[in-house]
Amino acid sequence: MVTKNQTKLIISLHQKKYRNKHSLFIAEGIKVIQELINSKLQLHEIYCTNKTVFEEARVDFQLISEKELKKISALTTPNNALALFKIPEPQKIDTNGLILVLDDIRDPGNLGTIIRLCDWFGIKDLVCSNETVDCYNTKVVQATMGSLARVNITYTDISDFIKNSDLPSYAATMNGTNVYKSSLPSPGILVMGNESNGVSEKVQEIIDHQITIPRFGDLKKTESLNVATATAIMLSEFSKNFE
Amino acid sequence: MVTKNQTKLIISLHQKKYRNKHSLFIAEGIKVIQELINSKLQLHEIYCTNKTVFEEARVDFQLISEKELKKISALTTPNNALALFKIPEPQKIDTNGLILVLDDIRDPGNLGTIIRLCDWFGIKDLVCSNETVDCYNTKVVQATMGSLARVNITYTDISDFIKNSDLPSYAATMNGTNVYKSSLPSPGILVMGNESNGVSEKVQEIIDHQITIPRFGDLKKTESLNVATATAIMLSEFSKNFE
Repeated sequence: MVTKNQTKLIISLHQKKYRNKHSLFIAEGIKVIQELINSKLQLHEIYCTNKTVFEEARVDFQLISEKELKKISALTTPNNALALFKIPEPQKIDTNGLILVLDDIRDPGNLGTIIRLCDWFGIKDLVCSNETVDCYNTKVVQATMGSLARVNITYTDISDFIKNSDLPSYAATMNGTNVYKSSLPSPGILVMGNESNGVSEKVQEIIDHQITIPRFGDLKKTESLNVATATAIMLSEFSKNFE
Repeated sequence: MVTKNQTKLIISLHQKKYRNKHSLFIAEGIKVIQELINSKLQLHEIYCTNKTVFEEARVDFQLISEKELKKISALTTPNNALALFKIPEPQKIDTNGLILVLDDIRDPGNLGTIIRLCDWFGIKDLVCSNETVDCYNTKVVQATMGSLARVNITYTDISDFIKNSDLPSYAATMNGTNVYKSSLPSPGILVMGNESNGVSEKVQEIIDHQITIPRFGDLKKTESLNVATATAIMLSEFSKNFE
């Protein structure tokens, strides 16, 4: 069973403020939890409505009722298990590869997809503006699966970060050089912007190069690409030279 | 106001069966509706809680209350306006360009993103298996914005379609040729598979070439790319040669 104090703690972790205070975040669902257990993340505790799964894996857990799970879950449809993991300390940023920088990404699904893309393309460091959605938000955790544990994520003032770095910097904008005709260096910095407003003017002013994915076709009416699909294309273009 | 019969009709259109029966689909929200009005789609009727928007645009509409909108809306949080448009007759498939084929895409958000990608990359024809989520599903309509009107979408038996076509066919799989080292022809057919199971065996058997986006980095643990981001990378690779 879940004690009153545990319930209070877990529900508080639905909010970023308390996640940071306790250095803990929530993962829900057996598959996500298993992926994170097998990562370098430190497990704090597991609550599960099903006895066999974690018993077989020889992992300590607390058996709880579905009613109890519903009370502590952040999901509309709770998914058998909920675990708490320690939020890892960000590692020093590795300046030997491509660093992806996010300028104010607000949608948890987009951030989750971008973290999975970093993992796929071997991007070790993701640097997020302080206004970017928290990567330990439950929806982000669900969307990233195990990738969350394999990418080093740092929240900081990205203008200062770019200014203080010697690496060549690129930002994805609507009016830059054609990405297919640019030579993209590694190490380097690539900035992707907010869903509605793109890369902020403040960041555009200090960036070395602006690059653009050209529109094709006759009509050319599509307003913009979704930021996650644009990131996929940019990382693909950056990475293919280093295969 | 909305009559009982209109209410009944609109609510029935939340289901594919009745959309097909009446050849009508629902679009919600002023921005989406305006984009579709400015397309070649045929407007059937508009219901709006706000008098000024469509009056200014000189478009006929029915003024309704927020309570009425909530009753007919398919959204949890209705968005000021709801319109019905005629489902267009699919056009003959143009075999002079790249044809994107979807093998059983189930998530409305993924299909919406893929339709926007087609529009961006000038792909005129999207051919969907009969099991693929309906493109006139309200969630898909919301996600595609105006792109829905600019891509010719055909639902059919995709195995028969591929068999009966003379075009070279490619499928995105996990064990194919490196897409960065392949020469991708246009016209041609590119098949993207289901979120969990990928391209079906039935389709793999009749396809000419399998292609793969390689994983990068040391760990190579990411299970797979999301189908919408994988489609973004594939279309980018196909299109860039023809810019």
